[in-house]
Amino acid sequence: MPMSVKLDDILSTLDSEFPQAQARLLEFLRIPSISTDPAHRGDVRAAAEWLCAELVGLGFDASIRDTPGHPMVVAHSPKGTRRPVLFYGHYDVQPVDPLELWTSPPFEPAIENTPAGPVIRGRGASDDKGQLMTFVEAFRAWKAVHGALPTDLVLLFEGEEESGSPSLRPFLRENADELRAGIAMICDTSMYADGRPAITTQLRGLLGQEITIRAADRDLHSGSFGGLAANPIQLLVNALASMKDATGRITLPGFYDGVPELTDELRADWQALGFDAADFLLRVGLKHPIGEKGRTALEMVWNRPTFEINGITGGYTGEGFKTVLPAEARAKVSFRLTGTQDPETILQAFHAHIRAAIPADCTVEFHGHGASPASRMNISDPAFAAAKQALSEEWGREAAYIGAGGSIPIAGDFKEILGMDSMLIGFARDDDRIHSPNEKYDLQSFAKGARSWARILAALT
Amino acid sequence: MPMSVKLDDILSTLDSEFPQAQARLLEFLRIPSISTDPAHRGDVRAAAEWLCAELVGLGFDASIRDTPGHPMVVAHSPKGTRRPVLFYGHYDVQPVDPLELWTSPPFEPAIENTPAGPVIRGRGASDDKGQLMTFVEAFRAWKAVHGALPTDLVLLFEGEEESGSPSLRPFLRENADELRAGIAMICDTSMYADGRPAITTQLRGLLGQEITIRAADRDLHSGSFGGLAANPIQLLVNALASMKDATGRITLPGFYDGVPELTDELRADWQALGFDAADFLLRVGLKHPIGEKGRTALEMVWNRPTFEINGITGGYTGEGFKTVLPAEARAKVSFRLTGTQDPETILQAFHAHIRAAIPADCTVEFHGHGASPASRMNISDPAFAAAKQALSEEWGREAAYIGAGGSIPIAGDFKEILGMDSMLIGFARDDDRIHSPNEKYDLQSFAKGARSWARILAALT
Repeated sequence: MPMSVKLDDILSTLDSEFPQAQARLLEFLRIPSISTDPAHRGDVRAAAEWLCAELVGLGFDASIRDTPGHPMVVAHSPKGTRRPVLFYGHYDVQPVDPLELWTSPPFEPAIENTPAGPVIRGRGASDDKGQLMTFVEAFRAWKAVHGALPTDLVLLFEGEEESGSPSLRPFLRENADELRAGIAMICDTSMYADGRPAITTQLRGLLGQEITIRAADRDLHSGSFGGLAANPIQLLVNALASMKDATGRITLPGFYDGVPELTDELRADWQALGFDAADFLLRVGLKHPIGEKGRTALEMVWNRPTFEINGITGGYTGEGFKTVLPAEARAKVSFRLTGTQDPETILQAFHAHIRAAIPADCTVEFHGHGASPASRMNISDPAFAAAKQALSEEWGREAAYIGAGGSIPIAGDFKEILGMDSMLIGFARDDDRIHSPNEKYDLQSFAKGARSWARILAALT
Repeated sequence: MPMSVKLDDILSTLDSEFPQAQARLLEFLRIPSISTDPAHRGDVRAAAEWLCAELVGLGFDASIRDTPGHPMVVAHSPKGTRRPVLFYGHYDVQPVDPLELWTSPPFEPAIENTPAGPVIRGRGASDDKGQLMTFVEAFRAWKAVHGALPTDLVLLFEGEEESGSPSLRPFLRENADELRAGIAMICDTSMYADGRPAITTQLRGLLGQEITIRAADRDLHSGSFGGLAANPIQLLVNALASMKDATGRITLPGFYDGVPELTDELRADWQALGFDAADFLLRVGLKHPIGEKGRTALEMVWNRPTFEINGITGGYTGEGFKTVLPAEARAKVSFRLTGTQDPETILQAFHAHIRAAIPADCTVEFHGHGASPASRMNISDPAFAAAKQALSEEWGREAAYIGAGGSIPIAGDFKEILGMDSMLIGFARDDDRIHSPNEKYDLQSFAKGARSWARILAALT
């Protein structure tokens, strides 16, 4: 840490000003900024304006930037000699239905004592207004102590994250020079487990496809045609079953090209997490991990590619029975990708596999549902070690590098469009009920989250 | 034919009285006896009463017999020394929607000239009131010529055929002694092709099953669980794909036990039909017969068992995409059975096959949708040769023994409950549009159908 940074003073300020920080977050949470609901369009803008005003008040050069959808809030601290850092969060929230399951009104947030400690209850408390405000409160305390903001900060807060971020990629492209930084901080994830801070350093990519197989030009009666006419459900089922061999490996030629083995460093970090696969499965009513032999559970979900059938439909599926040979059958499937697996190469191999299973008088049609490669951050960037150290000091536990089995598109977008890695650091808990009734954010997450960012800001120069 | 039967006079009477026969059928067709629609309950009964009155007028001991659903009409001619013959048909009809597709009101039947000849247009004209009346007009002409009905006839006309015949089997059981005959005549099928009369001598059986495979106790996110948690769609797909080998043979152990090879007699009859599989498939937009190698197309649909997936569903199937690992997946499947294949044995083998594909922490649930063995008539019974000869004479073309790929449950019910074979002889055409708007019955089918039954009655002693 540069000798000039008064970290202890900043942390003390955060502690002493915490009641005011809570009040600000409650005010922010009272704005029902549901981005998917056109009736709340004005509320979404109001949340952007509230946030922008906060940032202007702190000395940021902040503005509301219109998009075809909901606006972005972009802010810059004064230019200096620090390595530029972008901070990303979102100020929109999920819908609240079913409303009757809330124990208190979702937009009348309050501090509530629970057996596990005090929480802030309300829609958006965890996802993502509470987390976003951990950034803002850290900046505020820094300003209070130093009389000026840290230099070279770029803030990007969007209002469409819960609606699929349709404006984000165009906005990044159009404002790439303005937004590009050395690294991005994303505060929209959870801690690894209660009390253990984590930095997500790799995310699986996603390749989604819909397949429609068509045989006869109408539904047929299986009494008249069964045994003679192709059944598109059987064709689909055969094609999908042969995607994996008996050991669970995906059979597409070249599929595993670019799939990396774990480094010793990450293997050790993941081992230390003490992940209990049996318990993880038991919580959803299962006992036996499936997938490739000889891989640990965390490897399977974080570092190995998968093929999953996410939906399938064909023929008669209502009550009772119909002896139909349907005209078509459909499936939605997805691959999770790791390392440098190329979505386009895999797409071509998948299409060839399916086509090879279809007779000449039947057809198959493909429809894409996204294709993004895996994200792997360069953890030899000293910022990672610095942030890990800062998190470990704040939480009193060794922070971990972890993976994520899912895709967080913003990280891929930053990499692809702005050429920068992201650090995904979040303080949400698994029981925060994000997207569900009675969302909450632990007061501890809010307090120590802001303190964590103060430490990270101090550690990055 | 017994010397005493005046067949020529009967046929002449049928011809000369044909205008009156048409008028009677039109009257019968005006009764909207839709059995599936509770609003037409009274009409169904009215049709039963109309038919019963016709039979009483001809000298039958006829009565309406109530059931928990719609009534049966049962009639007996005087006892004599002939081998008893049961005649079966149904007086209920299909619903008429979509009504706007009818070119004339479905229950205002009329004779209509078409390029292919005159037809009777109206709901039930072919299925089955017109066909049923071919019996009645033959009996009437016989009575007119001989002054008495043929002896030893048992007539059974039901009013629930289009609603799945829920009362039929209980009624057969409760009245078995009264209804049992030497053979049954069923007039509810089509000619093999325009102008070629046929007797269906074998029907495939049907075993229907619904499978539900359950894995986790809730839908999972494929990012968090993909690669680790069992996917019930994949399990289902694997289990169904392995039901057949690469040559199209069904892999269940013992599945082909009891599947007969064609006799030389039937092979010759079927060969003579000149069935054009390529044309048959082309009409529904296909080109290539599938199924076991080395089997003719008619063998595949009439004499070989099949396994078909009739419906499948699981996961997300709406617009767009969801990266879900669903909690369950379902399929409806059916086997068509031939020869003496035992539905229960096959059911057990099928259950064992599916269970073997399911991990110990997942479950499978089966739900039955019918299990009936194949029907094969004993064509060495002289009645078959007699009827075949009579049909050949009436139509001026060699009648054929044919098979049916579908199941006609009534034939199996007669065999199982009353111990008698059935002759399925019908005069409908493939273009009669049964169950569809603008149903019709060729006037030629009605006229020559009645003449055919007169010849068959004369040939049976």
